[in-house]
Amino acid sequence: MPHYHAPLRDMRFVLHEVFAADTLWARLPALAETVDAETADAILEEAAKVTSELLAPLNRSGDEEGARWDNGIVSTPAGFREAYATYIEGGWVGLAGNPAYGGLGMPKMLAVQFEEMLYSANASFTLYSALTSGCCLALDAHASEELKQRYLPRLYSGEWAGTMCLTEAQAGSDLGLLRTRAEPQADGSYAISGSKIFITGGEQDLTANIVHLVLARLPDAPAGSKGISLFLVPKFLVEADGALGARNALSCGSLEHKMGIKASATCVMNFDGASGYLVGEPHKGLAAMFTMMNYERLSIGIQGIGCAEASYQNAAAYARDRLQGRAPAGAQAPQKSADPLLVHPDVRRMLLTMRALTEGGRAFSTYVAQQLDLAKHAEDAGERRHAEALVALLTPIAKAFFTDTGLESCIHGQQVFGGHGYIREWGQEQLVRDVRIAQIYEGTNGIQALDLLGRKVAANGGAALRLFAEEMRAFVDEPASRPFARELLAALERLESVSAWLLDQTGKDPALVGAVAVDYLNLFGYVAYAYMWVRMAAAAQASRTSDETFYGAKLATAGFYFAKLLPRIHSLEAVIRAGSTPIQNLADDQF
Amino acid sequence: MPHYHAPLRDMRFVLHEVFAADTLWARLPALAETVDAETADAILEEAAKVTSELLAPLNRSGDEEGARWDNGIVSTPAGFREAYATYIEGGWVGLAGNPAYGGLGMPKMLAVQFEEMLYSANASFTLYSALTSGCCLALDAHASEELKQRYLPRLYSGEWAGTMCLTEAQAGSDLGLLRTRAEPQADGSYAISGSKIFITGGEQDLTANIVHLVLARLPDAPAGSKGISLFLVPKFLVEADGALGARNALSCGSLEHKMGIKASATCVMNFDGASGYLVGEPHKGLAAMFTMMNYERLSIGIQGIGCAEASYQNAAAYARDRLQGRAPAGAQAPQKSADPLLVHPDVRRMLLTMRALTEGGRAFSTYVAQQLDLAKHAEDAGERRHAEALVALLTPIAKAFFTDTGLESCIHGQQVFGGHGYIREWGQEQLVRDVRIAQIYEGTNGIQALDLLGRKVAANGGAALRLFAEEMRAFVDEPASRPFARELLAALERLESVSAWLLDQTGKDPALVGAVAVDYLNLFGYVAYAYMWVRMAAAAQASRTSDETFYGAKLATAGFYFAKLLPRIHSLEAVIRAGSTPIQNLADDQF
Repeated sequence: MPHYHAPLRDMRFVLHEVFAADTLWARLPALAETVDAETADAILEEAAKVTSELLAPLNRSGDEEGARWDNGIVSTPAGFREAYATYIEGGWVGLAGNPAYGGLGMPKMLAVQFEEMLYSANASFTLYSALTSGCCLALDAHASEELKQRYLPRLYSGEWAGTMCLTEAQAGSDLGLLRTRAEPQADGSYAISGSKIFITGGEQDLTANIVHLVLARLPDAPAGSKGISLFLVPKFLVEADGALGARNALSCGSLEHKMGIKASATCVMNFDGASGYLVGEPHKGLAAMFTMMNYERLSIGIQGIGCAEASYQNAAAYARDRLQGRAPAGAQAPQKSADPLLVHPDVRRMLLTMRALTEGGRAFSTYVAQQLDLAKHAEDAGERRHAEALVALLTPIAKAFFTDTGLESCIHGQQVFGGHGYIREWGQEQLVRDVRIAQIYEGTNGIQALDLLGRKVAANGGAALRLFAEEMRAFVDEPASRPFARELLAALERLESVSAWLLDQTGKDPALVGAVAVDYLNLFGYVAYAYMWVRMAAAAQASRTSDETFYGAKLATAGFYFAKLLPRIHSLEAVIRAGSTPIQNLADDQF
Repeated sequence: MPHYHAPLRDMRFVLHEVFAADTLWARLPALAETVDAETADAILEEAAKVTSELLAPLNRSGDEEGARWDNGIVSTPAGFREAYATYIEGGWVGLAGNPAYGGLGMPKMLAVQFEEMLYSANASFTLYSALTSGCCLALDAHASEELKQRYLPRLYSGEWAGTMCLTEAQAGSDLGLLRTRAEPQADGSYAISGSKIFITGGEQDLTANIVHLVLARLPDAPAGSKGISLFLVPKFLVEADGALGARNALSCGSLEHKMGIKASATCVMNFDGASGYLVGEPHKGLAAMFTMMNYERLSIGIQGIGCAEASYQNAAAYARDRLQGRAPAGAQAPQKSADPLLVHPDVRRMLLTMRALTEGGRAFSTYVAQQLDLAKHAEDAGERRHAEALVALLTPIAKAFFTDTGLESCIHGQQVFGGHGYIREWGQEQLVRDVRIAQIYEGTNGIQALDLLGRKVAANGGAALRLFAEEMRAFVDEPASRPFARELLAALERLESVSAWLLDQTGKDPALVGAVAVDYLNLFGYVAYAYMWVRMAAAAQASRTSDETFYGAKLATAGFYFAKLLPRIHSLEAVIRAGSTPIQNLADDQF
């Protein structure tokens, strides 16, 4: 019953009207030849078709059927193989890939719109290729020229898929505990032995080969996280001429049974002396992985936005169709047995909360993507460093805040349906189950918060925060009459004041960062979205007379955000300032 | 893997130390002979065994297998039939039932502890008998003596089960739209025709008969909710001598496939001229149903507490066992590969949030139950009316706030497990799925909020709120040095101030109640829990020296509540005072 329409108008608004993407692209040589507004719109329209017509129809059946394991062979649900074949024909896997190896070189600003569509349409399907993109990024940045030539073109084309093999049973958030070993072989390769869990797409029936990126320890590795190296371990060995050779010594031991994303195969992978190739330098595998983490974490964050958008579309349609009760000021549809749900202020509150968070998230994902594009393509080194600093600061917020607010949105979207929201047939409960994992994987949201407050704010004395604050002030100072400028500045001052207090306190209290990091990330997230809404409101006001329905809705949603969601920072500030003592007061045996 | 232990020490603390239940019972003649502290403790210990040993072990297998439908026959999962037979032997279904018809007449204060254990152990199983209790309440209050004699004893014994048949496809929250018809027959019975959906336990294989309470319209019924009557419609007709007679003309058309509570059969029930018997007066069926609603809604609220308690127990055990990372001030277990999760302040924050909300909820459910006992058994009419007013005021808060905070707690309990929280085997994801329905059924939480603000506060000009506020003030005024008294009074003043503003504004703005009701209910909930924590802290302080581990934990958890959770009221107040305009600003076609 759910039917997904890609929000093309909203995406174009963000890309062109809020962030003037084509002006940026035109001044970056690597992009100027590759993309302009027209190309971008054409790609988005094609992406809308692929996601809504090819992938969305497989979302519920995929959930019902799930991925299956039979003696090491993994089957994806009915229709996935055919859809994948069609999907890769369009060249989508390499959309933002390096053109030197067959990628299309499109900007991340465009890619994030497509990723949102993918996650809206079918999160499980999307994961198979999302991991490939991550794998390509790591190889492109760190692998030898030989490995890149041999593997990247077939990964970008989607013929082969990639995975990330990090977690082990005893090593989750604490990767320093991992035990998988890599023994050097006479031919320069390594024999990889160990067992990895939670490997998305570790085995599947979609691609001819699977390229595993595996974290493991060399024999002389120091203990802990500084003794981890990165290896490329293919399912089938690849001959010098590119032909597939022998099956490598690795296998899928079982699949996990999960709450959601059931069509995504989450594998236990056993490596039994499998042949692998070192990527990057010995013992620097974690750093190599982290190069791509900012890129990947943003994508996983976007799963939160994508699921929330799909849930909103369904909930808004249901609220228009379903007749139940009467408007508070009297019947609006007296000729019918009841008014539509949409007349009820509480239903509107839920829908507007979803909209304000989802549209705020879409703008913020595009903003972070803009910084990623600048960090990669800007000619001026200072501009690149500035963008890199913003990316580092804002990525943990994007990952955690998109997914936390994504769950909140999907819960609202389910609640709008009443009892029908709990029934599988309507799809709303699947979105809740599917989005929930995004708060956990690719670094739990608690880990993201520690990264933000500990490494991205406290460790540099708030320098990166000051860059972001300067930009916000510059934006609202320009024409003094920007809508909601006052509210943004007041919220920014709260963030700065809390940050200064924390910078002062963290040295005195080692538990403080961990105790308040999640609340701090949320506070920062609401302020960042306030900046996004000021930018969206400014763009909407500029064009309001041309389309009152569209731009008026943007301004009204901005008004809702500032009146009804931004005030959450008041409680967050109070909770942060309460410090760590209320959390550390309980002894371990009192839990 | 999950293992449930009934929190007997905590329950005794609330019953005896916080609310001095036996002193109350001793002064209420109907209870003085029935129960004392010793009896209550013995019952709770037996209840702990039944729930943890008989029902909890069937929770995961019940979820995996689910209830099944085959040509009108419904089968519960393996083990349910045997467990149900053992369960009813203990007389548990009639625990709080009317002794005149075979119930045990135990106080609600005791029954709510048992209900919490049931929902912790196995929510799906619990629903089969919870509906029976509801059915009994309605019959006891409204049915003819003949119907009561014929049905109540076998319902209290658990031999037969009860259901509530309210919802129809077109009539969910808006029961005024229901169409099921009741035609008077020559023998004084009625022929019931229509289709009901979402009927919990509408068909099952646990009991010899099923007693449906069905809302339907008589031929001369006025339109809307004032034309609804209540009927008893048994699956098998019951002869004058109590023997089961012919199968009645009703059947289960199908089961719903749901997000959770999968072992609970959620039925489409078709009535094809089935024989039914009027309960109460014609056209007053909705009022008859509402007599029991306060009682039932409290129970459904307790599902939120029960699931949260189970999730807490699992999460605390996991946080103690799982080694990952190091404490912020340096290794706490240097001899091990890593410290337990419990050393991480963010993990403690999640666990303490769960504790503070769950224990606050347990105290509040006991408090509301105390008022229900007083409303039923107090000799003084004034005392009964006072208690009734508090029950009416606080029940929608209990239902919605217990279940909203129950979901929040279960989400935290899942997050503590990291990736393992998403895997079915650990049970944490099932608790999230199972608890989610409690925010929806028995009146969505949005409906509860409208009931609170519209009917329970605004409609009586805040009179009931004043009663509750007076009691809080009296409690903290007594010894002026009650811990957290100042924080409670400050929060109460915020609640009173917001309430006064709302009372002033609602007449001017018909959309206001609906626009802010949910935020108002949450604000009220946090203030009510603050009162509970002041009472628990007072009791803990009085006995602290006797058991520092237990009472010190209560005081520390109280401290956490006031420092880290109560501040949520700041944002809620700001959001309420923002009124309805930001919600009503969007035109229907802009959604």
